[in-house]
Amino acid sequence: MAIGDRILNCDVLAESGFLDDVVDRELLQAPTLNPFFAAGRETWRAVRTRISQLLREGGDPAFRERAHERDAIVRMAEARVHLPAEVGDYVDFYSSLQHATNLGKIFRPGGDPLMPNWRWMPIGYHGRAGTLVVDGTPVHRPSGQRRPPNADAPKFGPSTRLDIELEVGFFTGPGNAIGTPIPVADAPEHIYGLVLVNDWSARDVQAWEYQPLGPFLGKSFATTVSPWVVSLDALEPFRVAGPAQEPAPLPYLNASGAWNYDVHLTVELRTRQMREKHLGAEVVTTTNFREMYWNMAQQLAHATANGAAARPGDLFASGTISGDAPGSLGSFIEMTWNGRDPIVLPTGERRTFLEDGDEVTLRGWCERPGARRIGFGTARGTIVAQ
Amino acid sequence: MAIGDRILNCDVLAESGFLDDVVDRELLQAPTLNPFFAAGRETWRAVRTRISQLLREGGDPAFRERAHERDAIVRMAEARVHLPAEVGDYVDFYSSLQHATNLGKIFRPGGDPLMPNWRWMPIGYHGRAGTLVVDGTPVHRPSGQRRPPNADAPKFGPSTRLDIELEVGFFTGPGNAIGTPIPVADAPEHIYGLVLVNDWSARDVQAWEYQPLGPFLGKSFATTVSPWVVSLDALEPFRVAGPAQEPAPLPYLNASGAWNYDVHLTVELRTRQMREKHLGAEVVTTTNFREMYWNMAQQLAHATANGAAARPGDLFASGTISGDAPGSLGSFIEMTWNGRDPIVLPTGERRTFLEDGDEVTLRGWCERPGARRIGFGTARGTIVAQ
Repeated sequence: MAIGDRILNCDVLAESGFLDDVVDRELLQAPTLNPFFAAGRETWRAVRTRISQLLREGGDPAFRERAHERDAIVRMAEARVHLPAEVGDYVDFYSSLQHATNLGKIFRPGGDPLMPNWRWMPIGYHGRAGTLVVDGTPVHRPSGQRRPPNADAPKFGPSTRLDIELEVGFFTGPGNAIGTPIPVADAPEHIYGLVLVNDWSARDVQAWEYQPLGPFLGKSFATTVSPWVVSLDALEPFRVAGPAQEPAPLPYLNASGAWNYDVHLTVELRTRQMREKHLGAEVVTTTNFREMYWNMAQQLAHATANGAAARPGDLFASGTISGDAPGSLGSFIEMTWNGRDPIVLPTGERRTFLEDGDEVTLRGWCERPGARRIGFGTARGTIVAQ
Repeated sequence: MAIGDRILNCDVLAESGFLDDVVDRELLQAPTLNPFFAAGRETWRAVRTRISQLLREGGDPAFRERAHERDAIVRMAEARVHLPAEVGDYVDFYSSLQHATNLGKIFRPGGDPLMPNWRWMPIGYHGRAGTLVVDGTPVHRPSGQRRPPNADAPKFGPSTRLDIELEVGFFTGPGNAIGTPIPVADAPEHIYGLVLVNDWSARDVQAWEYQPLGPFLGKSFATTVSPWVVSLDALEPFRVAGPAQEPAPLPYLNASGAWNYDVHLTVELRTRQMREKHLGAEVVTTTNFREMYWNMAQQLAHATANGAAARPGDLFASGTISGDAPGSLGSFIEMTWNGRDPIVLPTGERRTFLEDGDEVTLRGWCERPGARRIGFGTARGTIVAQ
């Protein structure tokens, strides 16, 4: 559990017996959070409440002593982070109206930028669970087939249009049996919490391969996830209503209540030259998760509406998060309008897509007067030549 | 290990020490084959050779006695089968020229039935690993959105166009690290063996949802796998050359040697009425795996060419296997030409797509003079109302 620049080691807490009244020790001593996710909302809340009690000013003195003795609290800078869960299935949605509209305009100029199905359901696809990597993992530039404009034959080689996608994902809790969909009203029982997700994308590979079965190698080489899962309970003060949905969703997608979250998001870019010149990262995007058209309850209800099972630790990502303002776009293909308008950096370097040595960092946080600030940590990756 | 209508329990064999000279006991005592797949080709071959020695007429008498005592050999009819592996990622290709051409003709009449990318690479997508089920598992009719012809709005409800896809899949062995593709020439070190796969498909759901990100809920509700993984070593006598590939594949897809396999395949349909009248199943498709355009070595090299990792126990399916002859089509959408030409059954019943109570069985086998017959078992499922 992240607390500012420290980490509370729940393994030590569990082993020392401080959580025995609320949870089985082994749930917090496993190498991943899957067993804890599986335990369900009542357990998630009990553990959260108990730990708050222990940490509170003037809290349990036995805990304070024990924590000191056993290194229950360590400096984040000294820790090595891991993926929070072993992800059974990874689904990626496409739920930002602004992003879907921008890509439609770029790829199908003149036509209706949105497909006819887009306003009726959260469009999504399955990604590769085996190439999810945690914050800080280098990203190898993928090779693949691309067809240069007007060429008869494709070429194979390193992608020349390597991009990011700024997303927020949720991890599922107990899950459902095959044949038994999760109703939209039950979503709170099945969503543990949120992480940042960078769905790296090779646009040249994607453009040539994606018809008719969707993205495959253009996306499957790496997806970066932040290590700290922020629980929905912790995010309760930051719930907001989402945008109006028109046409009205079909009944199985009719989520009542506020299901969007006010999460500030940024994308930072730092090139090799910027590091060498000791320049800090450049913020290229500032946006917010609150404007997403389709929300998580709708996404989970939709993904299981056919009877498909979700398992504890499955990851569902939002799709690229883009806002209306020019500086609020969640991918380089949007920021540079398919490469037409390069970004100029403080070094004088120009970027359309990513070059080797470029470091991209996603950050997220919640803050508002009267509520405690919540940090999402980072999802960072540096491009290395393959 | 299946031997005719019996099962050799390798767990008992390992526990009794009969394989100690070739493999660590725990590799064969795990609840799934993942650790055995991870061990690699040398181990796969050593175990196969050792077990052949033990079973051979006049083989080890200690083994015969022990096998009898410990129920090392059990009747298949008395066993409950399970998925062979815990599948990390499930990829489904689209590698039959006949199938891709048929679907192109049905959905885009008048145009070129093949997309421009099809002859350059094995097109594929990620499916849902969490809804892979073993032979015999009932299949719940999925609900989903579909848009009736000429309607403004979609409807939500049980699929009315439930189909099958006859496929063969391969399980991967040791796998590769992220950033290190598996060269096409190394495929034999990474492919353990084959199973039958039925990629159930709700054509109405698929048609409405699939643009632009590909199949999602139209496929994710269930995929049936046969329980016996037939090793490439066992299939060696049945290797054959594949069809000519034109244009020539790019170098990274250039697989030398015979990479197709002569596997006879059938699809059987048995309705509830047929069962009630004690009628046997009707064979609706007879085809062969040998004609597939893209082969497994090419599929694995392509899927990892971008540096994506394959893990032990990942499953890669071929895509629907259809031949040139009318009775050799691997899906009902092809057999009935999108519902235009119903199949008439011995009961007088007609079928375009599947109805509740219909039982579909895939079978596969290899045989030729001078070689031992190899059976793939079955991948069977009965449709139940959701």
